[in-house]
Amino acid sequence: MDIYQESLQLHQEKKGKIEIAPLAPVTNQKELSLAYTPGVAEPCRVISTDISAVNTYTRRWNMVAVVSDGTAVLGLGDIGPQAGLPVMEGKCVLFKAFGGVDAFPLCVGTKDPDQIVQFVKLLEPTFAGINLEDISAPRCFQIEERLKKETNMAIFHDDQHGTAIVCMAGLINALKIVGKKIDQIKVVTVGAGAAGIAVIKLLMSMGVKDVIMCDRTGIIHQGRQKGMNPVKEEIAQITNRELRKGGIGDAFQGADVFIGVSGPGLVTPEMIASMNAKAIVMAMSNPTPEIMPDEAKKAGAAVVCTGRSDYPNQVNNVLAFPGVFRGALDVEARDINEAMKVAAAYAIASAVKAEELSPEFVIPKAFNPDVGPAVAAAVAQAAIESGVAGKQVDPEWVGQHCREMYTIA
Amino acid sequence: MDIYQESLQLHQEKKGKIEIAPLAPVTNQKELSLAYTPGVAEPCRVISTDISAVNTYTRRWNMVAVVSDGTAVLGLGDIGPQAGLPVMEGKCVLFKAFGGVDAFPLCVGTKDPDQIVQFVKLLEPTFAGINLEDISAPRCFQIEERLKKETNMAIFHDDQHGTAIVCMAGLINALKIVGKKIDQIKVVTVGAGAAGIAVIKLLMSMGVKDVIMCDRTGIIHQGRQKGMNPVKEEIAQITNRELRKGGIGDAFQGADVFIGVSGPGLVTPEMIASMNAKAIVMAMSNPTPEIMPDEAKKAGAAVVCTGRSDYPNQVNNVLAFPGVFRGALDVEARDINEAMKVAAAYAIASAVKAEELSPEFVIPKAFNPDVGPAVAAAVAQAAIESGVAGKQVDPEWVGQHCREMYTIA
Repeated sequence: MDIYQESLQLHQEKKGKIEIAPLAPVTNQKELSLAYTPGVAEPCRVISTDISAVNTYTRRWNMVAVVSDGTAVLGLGDIGPQAGLPVMEGKCVLFKAFGGVDAFPLCVGTKDPDQIVQFVKLLEPTFAGINLEDISAPRCFQIEERLKKETNMAIFHDDQHGTAIVCMAGLINALKIVGKKIDQIKVVTVGAGAAGIAVIKLLMSMGVKDVIMCDRTGIIHQGRQKGMNPVKEEIAQITNRELRKGGIGDAFQGADVFIGVSGPGLVTPEMIASMNAKAIVMAMSNPTPEIMPDEAKKAGAAVVCTGRSDYPNQVNNVLAFPGVFRGALDVEARDINEAMKVAAAYAIASAVKAEELSPEFVIPKAFNPDVGPAVAAAVAQAAIESGVAGKQVDPEWVGQHCREMYTIA
Repeated sequence: MDIYQESLQLHQEKKGKIEIAPLAPVTNQKELSLAYTPGVAEPCRVISTDISAVNTYTRRWNMVAVVSDGTAVLGLGDIGPQAGLPVMEGKCVLFKAFGGVDAFPLCVGTKDPDQIVQFVKLLEPTFAGINLEDISAPRCFQIEERLKKETNMAIFHDDQHGTAIVCMAGLINALKIVGKKIDQIKVVTVGAGAAGIAVIKLLMSMGVKDVIMCDRTGIIHQGRQKGMNPVKEEIAQITNRELRKGGIGDAFQGADVFIGVSGPGLVTPEMIASMNAKAIVMAMSNPTPEIMPDEAKKAGAAVVCTGRSDYPNQVNNVLAFPGVFRGALDVEARDINEAMKVAAAYAIASAVKAEELSPEFVIPKAFNPDVGPAVAAAVAQAAIESGVAGKQVDPEWVGQHCREMYTIA
């Protein structure tokens, strides 16, 4: 039986991957009167006079909604909200197992960005955080931007920022190996979807100065006419200062780093060979990378990362989102900002010890139990320092909290 | 420490009363690839070609949203969605413990009925059922009616129908004790809120022909000008055929049954004394009944029910909603209709055995483990017979399923 049939069978046997578990017993009249009426009236009264107490007397403090409209699910595309639900339930399992976060899947029956924004805004009394998932570009940008402005929840679109954070972690360690400095490298990226845009922004937040983004049409630059959209226009404004033009191949010449978040077949060994010496290749298209690791190395790449678990250096979002939300929730963060994402990337990178570091090991393993706590602590500290924390908590305690809530043996 | 302080402490210690528990393990790469990528793509693909399979491969089949806007919470009134959350979490605990139903609290940040309807409609890909809770009248009627029309989820407003069902169960058994027939009794009700309206409708669905509803103003009748609203107008059309007018006291004369869903202080011993012999009194105002049981008995009542756990015959919604939803979910019911509610009432009544029946014992105890299964089986059967079941299942199996999922020792 292949992995797909085995997974189908698991889903059928379990009849879903999450359940709602009570934390308070109701086995007799006394317990009933404490967890429910009449006793429950007291926390209600306290919260009605101080809304922030909802994070003390209910589970809101730890609740994240995994919101999707099913328009960009895995590599399957727009398969609808019902068909997206197995992925969202799986995400919730990971949130709990790796970060102790109570995440609940909400697959919504609309593709209209305004309706999705309105829906999510109404969730604010119940949820402290929102993880947007598998929402197609460019709708996802607009939805995320509005929610960040119009709510005080911690908003995070994992397809963008989770991928970008782990990619940056790999880059940070790869640069140590090749001995290059982040503010001096030339980076070329291929792919202008959700992850591609987030990668560009995080690269720049981390101090990279020379970036060129390509899509299938080629280099994105100011004044380009073909295949542009508002997000690409924005990218054209902030990248490619030398106003380079041409095809994807032109962009590779003299680059130090290639980051692919596109699809297979766009990148050739010749393009890799045209990069600077000690090139770093992050080919994250899944399941088939833009270029296979063996080919990339043969063409001169010093370090290669992919999205696959069967090669070294897997860019796996599970390294980021559980710790990011653990940190954000524990300080009651009103936002998940660039500073928090940068902090998460450095925390993930730091989980690979100096003596372990090698071209085959720049990204920690998904099941490394030190990653989540390191990310959570770093994110909490960055939230406090950047002024978006609702609560001052010792970041070290946040890391410890994440470790306690980690439920993987 | 009183019950309120003890409850507050419990809520603070537990930091919320529910959590999200994974049903599939993710402790190694293999498990991860089954519960999440790449394996999860297979259930996604299957559901994308047959949406109804969402109830096979995800938890949707067992998921109920407990939706509130916090406008009518307990006796506390409009305290807002955050302050209502402890009640909704408690409800979810009861759903799971008594019926094995996975219920999730959604306290929404709006009071606008249109926005609430729109919000709930978007939940349909994720939830099989909706339990509306603590939404003020008359908004709750409009919201429920639209959702029943505009969705295929099992919609149930517990403050209305849960109360009405358990009240009817008590009435069914009380009538056995006083030897009166349901189609021959005269019933007077006091209270025109959510529960009052539902009680009237369920009484009539069960064959009661002579009903008069009162509010604080007095008898509701066609042509009354003072304090009317669209729902009361509808009640005036279908009740009080003799067009009786006057105050609450006038309505009691010659009545066999009094049902109170109002507040304390509206009903006097003299009113009870003016009822027919062997009067049945259901004084469900909480925490203070319309008339205290001792007073009612002294004034001639043969059977008295209240909403309180410290008196005999407690009308407790927990006898109804877990089994109602267990039954509805197990047959994938598109509605919770009058036939299902009537079936639930008779099932609850039947849980009091003939040899146990007495004026002090017409309603089973909240912790009677036979109630939920009986209700679930009866509701499933009624759903199938009334044509709203999406799936043909043996009702006996449904009862057994409810018993297996009952988690109270």
